[in-house]
Amino acid sequence: MKLYHIGILGATGAVGREMLKILEEYHFPVGELRLLASKRSVGKTILFQGKEYPIEEATHQSFKGLDFVLGAASNAVAKEFKESILASHAVFIDNSSAFRMDPEVPLVVPEINGEDVFQHKGIIANPNCSTILTMLAVYALHKISPIESMIVSTYQATSGAGAQGPIELKSQMEALCKGEPVEVEVFQHQIAENVIPHIGSFLENGYSTEEMKMQNEGRKILHQPDLKVSCTCVRVPVVRSHSISVEVLTKNKIDVAAAKLAISKEKGCKLYDDPQNKIYPIPILTSDQDLVYVGRIRQSLVFENGITLWCSGDQIRKGAATNAVQIMMKLIGLEY
Amino acid sequence: MKLYHIGILGATGAVGREMLKILEEYHFPVGELRLLASKRSVGKTILFQGKEYPIEEATHQSFKGLDFVLGAASNAVAKEFKESILASHAVFIDNSSAFRMDPEVPLVVPEINGEDVFQHKGIIANPNCSTILTMLAVYALHKISPIESMIVSTYQATSGAGAQGPIELKSQMEALCKGEPVEVEVFQHQIAENVIPHIGSFLENGYSTEEMKMQNEGRKILHQPDLKVSCTCVRVPVVRSHSISVEVLTKNKIDVAAAKLAISKEKGCKLYDDPQNKIYPIPILTSDQDLVYVGRIRQSLVFENGITLWCSGDQIRKGAATNAVQIMMKLIGLEY
Repeated sequence: MKLYHIGILGATGAVGREMLKILEEYHFPVGELRLLASKRSVGKTILFQGKEYPIEEATHQSFKGLDFVLGAASNAVAKEFKESILASHAVFIDNSSAFRMDPEVPLVVPEINGEDVFQHKGIIANPNCSTILTMLAVYALHKISPIESMIVSTYQATSGAGAQGPIELKSQMEALCKGEPVEVEVFQHQIAENVIPHIGSFLENGYSTEEMKMQNEGRKILHQPDLKVSCTCVRVPVVRSHSISVEVLTKNKIDVAAAKLAISKEKGCKLYDDPQNKIYPIPILTSDQDLVYVGRIRQSLVFENGITLWCSGDQIRKGAATNAVQIMMKLIGLEY
Repeated sequence: MKLYHIGILGATGAVGREMLKILEEYHFPVGELRLLASKRSVGKTILFQGKEYPIEEATHQSFKGLDFVLGAASNAVAKEFKESILASHAVFIDNSSAFRMDPEVPLVVPEINGEDVFQHKGIIANPNCSTILTMLAVYALHKISPIESMIVSTYQATSGAGAQGPIELKSQMEALCKGEPVEVEVFQHQIAENVIPHIGSFLENGYSTEEMKMQNEGRKILHQPDLKVSCTCVRVPVVRSHSISVEVLTKNKIDVAAAKLAISKEKGCKLYDDPQNKIYPIPILTSDQDLVYVGRIRQSLVFENGITLWCSGDQIRKGAATNAVQIMMKLIGLEY
C-alpha cells in the first residue's frame, strides 16, 4: 500500500493533536510524519502509533517531500507558509479561515461537496466548525428541496477557543465551588455559570465573524450562492461538542417524517430523535466521535416550508480534524 | 396609608421567597402576612422586615380576610385552592400555568398589557418566565410595527427548575472538579458541562410545553391572536437569569437605529448593546435585578422586516416574583 508523507502544521494545538488521533484511528497509511510547530515547542515529543515523534520548528524548508500538509494553526501562520507549501507540491489542507472564501480554494465537507476537492490548486480549506456540523445536519433536507435560508443559534463549547478554553472553564468551576475569585483570560467574561454571545470579532453589520461564516461558508459548501443565514453564536460552559438550534426554510415544504427518514440515511449524521424518552442530541453524548447527532425535528410553527431542529457534534473531530483527514482520504480515493 | 393583607401560597419555594424580598424592596404596604406552604414546612419561619413569620399549612380556611394571594406553587396546588381563594374575595395572582390560557383570566406583563388587570374576575395569571422576558425585550418593536412572528432559542438557567436546580448544578460541578461520579436527579441528564433541549414535557407536534408557552402566552400578552412562534427551549449550566436569542419579524421593516432607540426608552428594558466593547447581556450580569437587558440588535440577514437580538433577565425576579408584585401594584394604583 502506498504510504503518504504528512506534515502537521500546528501539531501541538487541540486540533493538531486530534488530527494525529484521527490518522491512527482511521489507519491512514502514514509514511513520514513531520510534527511542525513554533520554536517554543521544540524539544517536546508526541506519541504516534507507539513511536515518539519530535516537534520540529516550522520553517520554509519544512515541507519538502511531503504529500500533504494538514494545517491546524492560525490564519497568520497559514498565510506565512502558504507559498512554501505550494512550492513543495504538498497539498495544503488548511483548518484556518485564511483561504476559505478564496474562489480558487475548495471549501469542503466531504459528505456534501466532496467532489470539489478535485478542483484544488494546492490548497483545500476546512470549513468553520459550527458550519460543518450545521450543514451536515441540514444537508439531507437540502437534497429534498433546496435550502433558501436558516435562522441559527449556537451553543458552542469552550474547546472551540483552543486547548486553553476548557482549562479556563475548569479552573473557574473550581474557584466557584470553593468560593474563590474567578480569573478571566481566554474568554471575554467569566464562562463558568454564564453564556457569552461573542465569538470572533464584530463587523459593521453587528454580526460577529463567527456568525457570518455560517452564511458565507454555507453558501460555498452547499453551492447555494444566495443562501441567507441569520446566526447568533454563543459560548456556553461546555467542554466539548457544539450544539445548534436551527430553523431551516426550504423551497418547498418537507414533511417531518420525510425529513427524519432522510436524515437517518445521511452519511455522517445520526438521527437521535425520541424526546419522550429523553433522546435528543446533548454535547456530553456527542463528544469524542465523528457523527453529527440530529433531533428535535419538527414542523416550524412560523413557516409552512420550515423545519425546526437541534443538532450536536464534536467540533474538534468532525468540526475540524476528522473533516480534514476525510478531505485527504477523498482526494486519494480511500474509503472512510 | 392603606395596608394590604397578603398570603403567599408556596412561600418556601424559590419564587415565594423572592416575592417576599420584592415586597420588602418595593416597600409594599403589607398589613397581615400569611406564609402558606405544605404541611412539611410547618415549624419553619421566614424573616420579613426584621420579623420572624411562621410557615402555616395551606388549607381552605387560610385565605379569609386577605386582599391578595400570591401563588408560587404548582398547578395542582393552584387548582386545589382556587375556589377557596375566590370565596375569600382575595385577588389570586398566580404564577403557575394552571389558569394562564383561561379566557376569563388576564395574563399580564404590566409594562405591556397592564390595563388587562382590571378585567380580572378574581384571578390574574403571571406568565411563563422566558415569555415575560422575551415579550418585554421585543415590545418596543411591536409598538413601532406589529410583530407577526418570532424564531426563538432560549438559554435557561437551572434555577428555573426551582431551588433544587442550582443545587444540582453546583454538586455536579464539584463532582466533576474532583473527578467523582455525577448524580442526576432534577434534570433529565447531567447539566454541568452540558446543555439540554428539554424543558417541560413534549407534545404531539414535537414542541415542549415550555416552547408552546412562548407562542400561546405571547399571543395573549401582545393581544396578537395570530402571532406565530417557533421556539426551542434549552437548559444551560447557569445559576440564574435566562438568556434568549430572538429573530423578530414585524409587519413593516424597522430600522436598527430606531429599534435601539425604542428599546432604550422602554420601561422595564435596558439597552445594553456595544459589542465592540464586550457590552451585551450575559446572565451573570443580569441576575438579582428587575430589568431585561437587550443587546446584539441587528438587521436580520434573512428577512427584510426582521430584527435579530439577544436578551437576558432574572427569571425569578422579573420572570416571576417581581412581575407578580407589579401586577398587584398596578391593580391598586401604586407606582413602581
